[in-house]
Amino acid sequence: MKLFSRIVIVGVGLMGGSVGLAVRKRDLAQCVVGIDPDRWNLSTALDRGAIDLATTDFEEGVRCLGGDVSDDSTTELVVVATPVGQVADCVRRTIDVLRNSATRRNVLITDVGSTKQAICSQLDGLERGLLSEGCRFIGSHPIAGSERSGPEYSDENLFEKRLTLVAPSDAIRDHDLGLLVRFWQRLGSSVLCMSPEDHDRVLARTSHLPHLLSALLAEGLRRQDVPFTGSGFRSTTRLAAGGPSMWSDIVSTNPTAILEAIRDFETGLQSLRDSIERQAWPEIAAFLESAKRNRDGLDENARTAQTLAK
Amino acid sequence: MKLFSRIVIVGVGLMGGSVGLAVRKRDLAQCVVGIDPDRWNLSTALDRGAIDLATTDFEEGVRCLGGDVSDDSTTELVVVATPVGQVADCVRRTIDVLRNSATRRNVLITDVGSTKQAICSQLDGLERGLLSEGCRFIGSHPIAGSERSGPEYSDENLFEKRLTLVAPSDAIRDHDLGLLVRFWQRLGSSVLCMSPEDHDRVLARTSHLPHLLSALLAEGLRRQDVPFTGSGFRSTTRLAAGGPSMWSDIVSTNPTAILEAIRDFETGLQSLRDSIERQAWPEIAAFLESAKRNRDGLDENARTAQTLAK
Repeated sequence: MKLFSRIVIVGVGLMGGSVGLAVRKRDLAQCVVGIDPDRWNLSTALDRGAIDLATTDFEEGVRCLGGDVSDDSTTELVVVATPVGQVADCVRRTIDVLRNSATRRNVLITDVGSTKQAICSQLDGLERGLLSEGCRFIGSHPIAGSERSGPEYSDENLFEKRLTLVAPSDAIRDHDLGLLVRFWQRLGSSVLCMSPEDHDRVLARTSHLPHLLSALLAEGLRRQDVPFTGSGFRSTTRLAAGGPSMWSDIVSTNPTAILEAIRDFETGLQSLRDSIERQAWPEIAAFLESAKRNRDGLDENARTAQTLAK
Repeated sequence: MKLFSRIVIVGVGLMGGSVGLAVRKRDLAQCVVGIDPDRWNLSTALDRGAIDLATTDFEEGVRCLGGDVSDDSTTELVVVATPVGQVADCVRRTIDVLRNSATRRNVLITDVGSTKQAICSQLDGLERGLLSEGCRFIGSHPIAGSERSGPEYSDENLFEKRLTLVAPSDAIRDHDLGLLVRFWQRLGSSVLCMSPEDHDRVLARTSHLPHLLSALLAEGLRRQDVPFTGSGFRSTTRLAAGGPSMWSDIVSTNPTAILEAIRDFETGLQSLRDSIERQAWPEIAAFLESAKRNRDGLDENARTAQTLAK
């Protein structure tokens, strides 16, 4: 069964392209429209079957939406899959286009950004207006992706067996939330709802901090040391290959929680250094044991948690 | 052509098992003997074809060596593939056994440990004695491995297209060094010779520090955060699954260089934190760009360097 008549994807990179492929594979919409300023992205996404319609013109793309606000069964979806820093602006522009169009719309807008609080607070003032216009925004964050970017790396199964976090504000209608949760579930995700604040604090620890440590390790690599790196250095620094502008946005929209995570890590590093300075080898051994236990339990625990979240 | 009449491998885990498989695949020795206190390791290694002869009795295993010191073409090899902390002791025990045996031996001893200076300085006093007994030690370190341990994960191609570091001391005969270099090359490795001191300093930065950061990240993971970890957290903490006793030995045998690497990393982390506190987003963007450039260049640079080292 189709969940939406049309889906507009703003930004057809790795994430946007994967949403398109996943939606079309599972036949969740009559038509998928892709908007991107980059013609190469659009043609690649078209070629790979991620979108049915492609345009570099934002207004043109949003105007492809059509439906009637009185009929909930014809809700349409806009997925903003740009870097985090552009999400709020894209949502505002979408509303402007719809506000100025002849027919009223029943449009749900979401995103796939890695931080939620900044986006939500930028859109807070708009919220009542959004509702009255027949447009609503609920932030999403599928914990899936790659250090690579571009629609050529998009994957129709990217969201399969992953967790998607949905961060609704108070003004959200149950029906909309239910629809969005169903959308991600149909793409193969488990879904957890949490506040934007909680989202950003947790992700600072599990995603943003690891990214920065990985980047710091890669950035600190001396040229003459390169031949002495093995597969361990490669996996530890894999994240550092991620898009700098995308990650720069993530850091600038979540500085408080990231700083807290960095400070906690610094405390741990100091304590480890202290153990080595004191040659306290049993402490080091216990630390490595505990780290291994946590790492070994990761896959199993994650599986259990995802089952619970279903 | 066989390089050695017999090869004795002390410790048939992932590394020892891989040496055995690689030697037997390439037919470099008439017979491979495995010594391990763990019967399960021995039977797995036998079953996988990594060794021809298995024993839990150290003396028995070393006594399998046979040959004549006057004939260099019948040199035998002992590969000590135990955790770093046990290497020097295993070398000493090997010499003791050979000293007390009826026939004189022509035996080259090496290891595969991740630190070299502590082993070499522990054996320094022995060096002249070693030479007179017809036994010589030269440390090796193949930059290859896995976070997994045990002979069930051993791989006959583990050393293919990898770099092996060989750390000879001054007392080493050219012929021995040449033989050991040839050995690792025949297993598919490039070989670089460097002093134990240089080895430990470089590896502290490219391997030991990444391992400790990975472990610290895994150790700091809160139970309730587990469902929010993605593939990024997994790759950044992959190393943390490595054997704690093996890594505890590495830290305790290379504390000075590791502390220096930690302090450098702490300085970088403080500077990154400072940029975030000052909301200096262009600095962050430049840092992420530079990190990506280093990471992207890793594979290409490593390939070039390995070609040069051949």
